[in-house]
Amino acid sequence: MKPIINVAKSFGIDEKYLELYGKYKCKIDLQIREDLRDRPDGKLVLVTAMNPTPAGEGKTLTTIGLSQALNAIGIPTIAALREPSLGPCFGMKGGATGSGKAEILPAEDINLHFTGDIHAITAAHNLLSAMIENHIYHGNKLQIDTQKIVWKHAMDMNDRSLRRIVCGIGDGNGSVHESGFMITTASEIMAVLCLSEDLSDLRQRLGRIIAAYNMAGEAVTAEQIGAVDSMTVLLKDAIKPNMVQTAEGTPVFVHGGPFANIAHGCSSVIGTKTALKLADIVVTEAGFGADLGAEKFFDIKCRQSRLDPAAAVLVVTIKALKYNGGVSKNELDDLNVAALQAGLANMERHIENIRKFRVPVMVAINHFAHDHDEEVAFVVDHCRRLGVRAEVSDVWAEGGAGGQRIAETLRDILQNETSSFAPLYTNDSSLMDKIETIIRQIYRGAGAHLTPSAFKKLEQIEHLGYSNMPVCMAKTPYSFSDQPALLGAPEGFTVQVKDITLSAGAGFVVVHTGNIVTMPGLPKVPAAERIYLDESGKVNGLV
Amino acid sequence: MKPIINVAKSFGIDEKYLELYGKYKCKIDLQIREDLRDRPDGKLVLVTAMNPTPAGEGKTLTTIGLSQALNAIGIPTIAALREPSLGPCFGMKGGATGSGKAEILPAEDINLHFTGDIHAITAAHNLLSAMIENHIYHGNKLQIDTQKIVWKHAMDMNDRSLRRIVCGIGDGNGSVHESGFMITTASEIMAVLCLSEDLSDLRQRLGRIIAAYNMAGEAVTAEQIGAVDSMTVLLKDAIKPNMVQTAEGTPVFVHGGPFANIAHGCSSVIGTKTALKLADIVVTEAGFGADLGAEKFFDIKCRQSRLDPAAAVLVVTIKALKYNGGVSKNELDDLNVAALQAGLANMERHIENIRKFRVPVMVAINHFAHDHDEEVAFVVDHCRRLGVRAEVSDVWAEGGAGGQRIAETLRDILQNETSSFAPLYTNDSSLMDKIETIIRQIYRGAGAHLTPSAFKKLEQIEHLGYSNMPVCMAKTPYSFSDQPALLGAPEGFTVQVKDITLSAGAGFVVVHTGNIVTMPGLPKVPAAERIYLDESGKVNGLV
Repeated sequence: MKPIINVAKSFGIDEKYLELYGKYKCKIDLQIREDLRDRPDGKLVLVTAMNPTPAGEGKTLTTIGLSQALNAIGIPTIAALREPSLGPCFGMKGGATGSGKAEILPAEDINLHFTGDIHAITAAHNLLSAMIENHIYHGNKLQIDTQKIVWKHAMDMNDRSLRRIVCGIGDGNGSVHESGFMITTASEIMAVLCLSEDLSDLRQRLGRIIAAYNMAGEAVTAEQIGAVDSMTVLLKDAIKPNMVQTAEGTPVFVHGGPFANIAHGCSSVIGTKTALKLADIVVTEAGFGADLGAEKFFDIKCRQSRLDPAAAVLVVTIKALKYNGGVSKNELDDLNVAALQAGLANMERHIENIRKFRVPVMVAINHFAHDHDEEVAFVVDHCRRLGVRAEVSDVWAEGGAGGQRIAETLRDILQNETSSFAPLYTNDSSLMDKIETIIRQIYRGAGAHLTPSAFKKLEQIEHLGYSNMPVCMAKTPYSFSDQPALLGAPEGFTVQVKDITLSAGAGFVVVHTGNIVTMPGLPKVPAAERIYLDESGKVNGLV
Repeated sequence: MKPIINVAKSFGIDEKYLELYGKYKCKIDLQIREDLRDRPDGKLVLVTAMNPTPAGEGKTLTTIGLSQALNAIGIPTIAALREPSLGPCFGMKGGATGSGKAEILPAEDINLHFTGDIHAITAAHNLLSAMIENHIYHGNKLQIDTQKIVWKHAMDMNDRSLRRIVCGIGDGNGSVHESGFMITTASEIMAVLCLSEDLSDLRQRLGRIIAAYNMAGEAVTAEQIGAVDSMTVLLKDAIKPNMVQTAEGTPVFVHGGPFANIAHGCSSVIGTKTALKLADIVVTEAGFGADLGAEKFFDIKCRQSRLDPAAAVLVVTIKALKYNGGVSKNELDDLNVAALQAGLANMERHIENIRKFRVPVMVAINHFAHDHDEEVAFVVDHCRRLGVRAEVSDVWAEGGAGGQRIAETLRDILQNETSSFAPLYTNDSSLMDKIETIIRQIYRGAGAHLTPSAFKKLEQIEHLGYSNMPVCMAKTPYSFSDQPALLGAPEGFTVQVKDITLSAGAGFVVVHTGNIVTMPGLPKVPAAERIYLDESGKVNGLV
């Protein structure tokens, strides 16, 4: 690792903008964007993927490796990634910092407390919760309906026992009512932080958050609770982008990590826009497959913040294609061109979808050691017939060198193809139209079926005046449909909409197509049982 | 403010030991103590106070001002203070960073997230909670009695609605049972962190924490839950002392802040011991008045970690003395020598008590602008007759210069009087003996009365084999007795013991003499409503 000051220097970032957290992590002062406002922006590239499978696709890995490779071929590039949260690190998986030779460092620190952003969001979230309860306790001047407190509590830990609680039990402890906890990354504040343009926009968005409804059914906002200025104070550092580096010294902005189902699953707008002032290319990613991640990146993040994506890279793997072609998890290493061919329908549809946003797209085949050359060639050939350039990426084994071909292809595309990005739908179409448009055009379903209560919620949200917002689909990532087992490229299905909620601060309407768990549980043997500090003080078992 | 690197340099701390958090805050690597092990320790001075009153006594202020003054008269001195927690900052009071010309900086940062220690403790606490619940969910091999989960949840926020909750509600969310939240500073992990000698001791103490009891009534520890190594990983940075500076550039270690009722109320042992290697004098403080703070500092902190306190400074104010002499809060500015004389009984008893630990003591009269000279002279004169040196401290108005007289007096005491510190009781006396000893010798009550359930708990704790631990009294700070309104120097009262609990990791038995609230609530108009970020990005209304 190079001292982060040196990484910054190599991209022309003066030390005065850096707030160091040790030698290898820093935050960047928001002032830098102001000072560089006349400098032209670099080009923004989205890394997305086919539908995720148990084999793992390597979207983060490819984002890191591609940014290393672009620097290696002489194009100053910064990667912009989401930051991992503590909860999952102690549950199932080992962080979100890449692996092999496409890793961001210091991986342990990034996966642990990092620069404290998520802790700050937890604090801001729970301050609002406490002030809502306190308002009710001290007389409830706003006439909040205690059965309609929509703002619950947050914690960055996987604890299923806190999903649903009854609080306020006992004398002097407030009103007894049901509540619950979500993991902090699912907090609307995380989405707000990631979509804010600056501190003043952050404050305004926080103020628009709906805390509860009153006895008359009207929304009570965080602004009315009087919590917003203090919440902003708690978030004043969290809003500054964090910079770390890849194993090859490429700068990486790791900032914000909202859920990709009930939220938009993209790293921060501030991080992206700051990086665009500092690099010729900014490579970023979005959560889950392109049906959720790319759609939300385009329709929510780019729409709201007027970002202009120049190209998209769709990550596929031979294994994931065969899995989508019907092969079971344990037989993915076997040669099976027929299944591969069937699975290509999944990739093909994602390519078509990205083209609907009028953004040039290429395919990166994230290579595994056991991949059969014949299968790789089949995919490349199939893409050629679709008019899409596909290249093998070997960044896990070789770092930037293994990404040379995808980097050169991307450079060609950026030089020769023009993006004329446009979102899928306009703000002024109805919420129902927006939902139907996504289902028909992206998922290729027949339409939506709303439960009576979801329909009622839809009407309420329109009545409250929020129908001009984009929609944020909360759907299984494993299928284009709302049924996880429906792989490949299904058609004709109806999407069941079970609930509709409003994230007024983030600026979108969430469409729930199933029971989305916003507070994960720990598995039978949590990763926490394997993580330890060795004699030398090094963390083991985390990444 | 000087860059913290320069503050460190002026005390011979090499940059290699510093982990910077911005320009004005840092953590100090634990390695420095190892590297300086052959250097003799400086002298440890405790700043304590008479019983607190609504007028405020200025113990933290005096600690800061005294350390500035000692440096001003040429004695390299470091102050070691507790770190404030977020919750109270948004509730009643504006931080714990001193005020006037005896302030530590950057005050806003220290009162907000600081270096993330308290967030790390919250995470470690809730990881253990989640793993207990998860163990039960996945089969409960340890046969935990869900009615006897003593390890609840923690949050650094004042939210009375979470004091008592029912969790685990709903299908697949675990077992339904009562639980609750405490504020993080009340977590046993905070006490553990503050009493640990090093990382290995921290890990062992965490392992001894009692999580629950099984169906057979036996203790189930954090070690058995399998959470301890991950908790240690979460705390690996929090255990490193934080360094900041006073307004006059004096280094201040601000590290750890346990409750002063259910815990021992002192900053970290690691911070204290590291400072003792770096300075000739280390000035530290303990929570509440000397009946709680000094007693626990001596009987818990100094006993456990074999610290050898060289002297104590008892802070009094003319107002607090008159309040203890029966004057009401609104009349404290009026000349009233009779009340002052009556109130001196309180001071006198604290002096006698400190002498029982065989530690030299002096009195610092924290001066207010409206104090009458006649009253100040009366106190000084009274102290002279008791054989105690008393000096006026004016550090709020004048900083180090205002502390010159207390600093010079302290220097004389350290040169001419010898401490032969010994705790009040021995480890091997029974728990009941320890309780009675504190009540008779320090509080001057007639003895303890235990409720039947407290008595049963006492027997259980002895049965479990923990009777060799010191006791930690959880009592009102306002009176020597357990009745807050009994001011001055009461005698003959019986202390009602309502509960006895075990903090096996911290290493003490907590004796509850009333209903100690471990989760505060917010007041009708919380401070949060007045805190805001101004146009220039500065925090207002916090300190």
